Amino acid sequence: MESKEWSSGVWTHLTAVRRQSPLVQCITNFVSMDLVANTLLSAGASPAMVHSVAEVPDFTPHIHALFVNVGTLTPDWLPSMKAAAELAAQLGKPWVLDPAAVSCSGFRLKACLELVEIKPSVIKGNGSEIIALSGSASQGQTKGADSSHESTEAIEAAKSLALSSGAVVAVSGAVDIVTDGKRVIGVHNGTKMMQRITATGCSLAGLVAAFLAVDPLQPLEATVSAMSVFGIAGELGEELANGPASLRMHLIDSLYGLDETTVLSRVKITRLG
Amino acid sequence: MESKEWSSGVWTHLTAVRRQSPLVQCITNFVSMDLVANTLLSAGASPAMVHSVAEVPDFTPHIHALFVNVGTLTPDWLPSMKAAAELAAQLGKPWVLDPAAVSCSGFRLKACLELVEIKPSVIKGNGSEIIALSGSASQGQTKGADSSHESTEAIEAAKSLALSSGAVVAVSGAVDIVTDGKRVIGVHNGTKMMQRITATGCSLAGLVAAFLAVDPLQPLEATVSAMSVFGIAGELGEELANGPASLRMHLIDSLYGLDETTVLSRVKITRLG
Amino acid sequence: MESKEWSSGVWTHLTAVRRQSPLVQCITNFVSMDLVANTLLSAGASPAMVHSVAEVPDFTPHIHALFVNVGTLTPDWLPSMKAAAELAAQLGKPWVLDPAAVSCSGFRLKACLELVEIKPSVIKGNGSEIIALSGSASQGQTKGADSSHESTEAIEAAKSLALSSGAVVAVSGAVDIVTDGKRVIGVHNGTKMMQRITATGCSLAGLVAAFLAVDPLQPLEATVSAMSVFGIAGELGEELANGPASLRMHLIDSLYGLDETTVLSRVKITRLG
Repeated sequence: MESKEWSSGVWTHLTAVRRQSPLVQCITNFVSMDLVANTLLSAGASPAMVHSVAEVPDFTPHIHALFVNVGTLTPDWLPSMKAAAELAAQLGKPWVLDPAAVSCSGFRLKACLELVEIKPSVIKGNGSEIIALSGSASQGQTKGADSSHESTEAIEAAKSLALSSGAVVAVSGAVDIVTDGKRVIGVHNGTKMMQRITATGCSLAGLVAAFLAVDPLQPLEATVSAMSVFGIAGELGEELANGPASLRMHLIDSLYGLDETTVLSRVKITRLG
Repeated sequence: MESKEWSSGVWTHLTAVRRQSPLVQCITNFVSMDLVANTLLSAGASPAMVHSVAEVPDFTPHIHALFVNVGTLTPDWLPSMKAAAELAAQLGKPWVLDPAAVSCSGFRLKACLELVEIKPSVIKGNGSEIIALSGSASQGQTKGADSSHESTEAIEAAKSLALSSGAVVAVSGAVDIVTDGKRVIGVHNGTKMMQRITATGCSLAGLVAAFLAVDPLQPLEATVSAMSVFGIAGELGEELANGPASLRMHLIDSLYGLDETTVLSRVKITRLG
Repeated sequence: MESKEWSSGVWTHLTAVRRQSPLVQCITNFVSMDLVANTLLSAGASPAMVHSVAEVPDFTPHIHALFVNVGTLTPDWLPSMKAAAELAAQLGKPWVLDPAAVSCSGFRLKACLELVEIKPSVIKGNGSEIIALSGSASQGQTKGADSSHESTEAIEAAKSLALSSGAVVAVSGAVDIVTDGKRVIGVHNGTKMMQRITATGCSLAGLVAAFLAVDPLQPLEATVSAMSVFGIAGELGEELANGPASLRMHLIDSLYGLDETTVLSRVKITRLG
């Protein structure tokens, strides 16, 4: 299946998000809350940053998808992540795990491995994070939030993690990789400067949750669509930008304004394996 | 009283904020802290995000107004909200409650009802929040941060809540409603796209606190002025915007630059009841 | 040494940050996390908002510098600040303390004094904060985040604090002051409107940490360079801005795009004592 064949799927997913405005619970790091919320709002979804374990039993049954990101994890946040994920999984609602900076500590790696046990629909990380989480690399190669691996270096790790976890695994990078362990898809949209804006990776993962909400039975396709849409918005944004801060603004504006012609002409998705 | 008669009041309030630069303590949700602070700074106020219960006894006596928003409430934040509200109320300082997403859990509804007992000067919510808080609707109709009710549907709920709580009640929406239980005022400024930016509702509520600080004895008038000013800034912003992110930027710039002629010509306030 | 002599040092420091992309651990307040991260990313550094005490033993040994800001301090955050600072100091890594709103409570003043004991490389505050921390003023003169003193009023307090603490002390203001207790340097870059954007002070302090990371043995020179670079980015930003929000955007874009000619022609640094 080539780009042309994927394009209509991407547009179908985006219009479904805009029409259905799925309620996406986000338990994400402090740095990213603003951009994640604005990304989801500009895509047409309804984000809710509800992270208290006291609210999970009442709130999580009403959501359409859950997004969990461990970027500023502390021990007191882990129980609500687990409780929300367990309830979502039990109720058949899709959920996305972003193992941000997973290898920065033994505590965080252990927490992420425990979250993987709760069967996320999609795991989204950069190359270094996916390699660390899949056990393909010794802990300690990357310590911060930025990746020291190209996404394409992480393909085998991603496939392995997909097979062992049952999740679709997405690796963001110059080429975004999405795999269910069998199929490997490459999304070639996006621009390099997006890495110079904090929380773009988190926001993409949140957007994946919104797309899953409208197509929960096809997590690979929904993930590919979200990554392409976000990448296209970034490309359009960069055409107007003078640096990372104006790119951030134009990216969100572009995501809000995306039309069918632009999407169909810009989607770049290929089968890699 | 028609728009023309309100206009000079709006301008008087804004210039008082700019001149006095009131110190506004904000105990608000994580998502909104950045935009609340920048809204207050651009209006000329001095925001202080001081939320530790350990600091309330020393700090709160020095503030000019308090803003409390429960958007990312957890049980450990509630004591500081209560302590600051109680001290503010005791010292005769105005305070604003924003019961964000009040119906997302029984925990949050109970917390908000307890905060209402501490006699906020103003309660600011969207239609769904005010209806839920006033007990006019069964819990559970709206689960997220976005409203499923028009503000005008909440007029009776707002009046009832105003009478039972003693607070001025403000309902943001296509038309903003402000009532003290007897008078009902409609503020027709603002634009629809502001709802696609996270934390605009929180920022408006924070701005109400700044306006209350300079006119604590007229909470209805101060609230109406703040809502009109924020709405006008949004209208000016939208004329320059290409989407939600540029609207956010231009809104803050416009709030900073508002001049008398623009304010006087744009205020749209009517008596609705 | 006059501006011309400092200019090449400023450019050398900036290019070193861009080339080495130092990993800077930031334990900062909630309001500032987004802007601090984007400031560091646009300057070429790699920020990591890792604040859990559970992660300090694993993570902090890998960083190149640490930044601690107490802007939204609560008692549960203090242990991780201390643990990270102690480990950084022990491992010879530079660290920066920003005693934001230090005088807003006895709790916060005590916490900052304890942090000063852990030998920060640089202490960065506004005039009121440095005066309060150095004991030159009774607690209580300034209660919020904004300064009620010009930086130049704080020179003696800064020198005294530098001598007693062993840190380089930086005072942001219309003229930024940097002193090691003997030399007093004035940085005349920057614009007044930057004070109307929340977290610019925090972001500047975070940038100082990134510059220290590439020149840890010359903390005064690295601090002066960071303050000049940030001020120049603000000046360039203001030329394009219509208010605080567009200034914030253009400041970050400008920091990202700074070239040698611009830096060399704009640095304004003088010896004041």
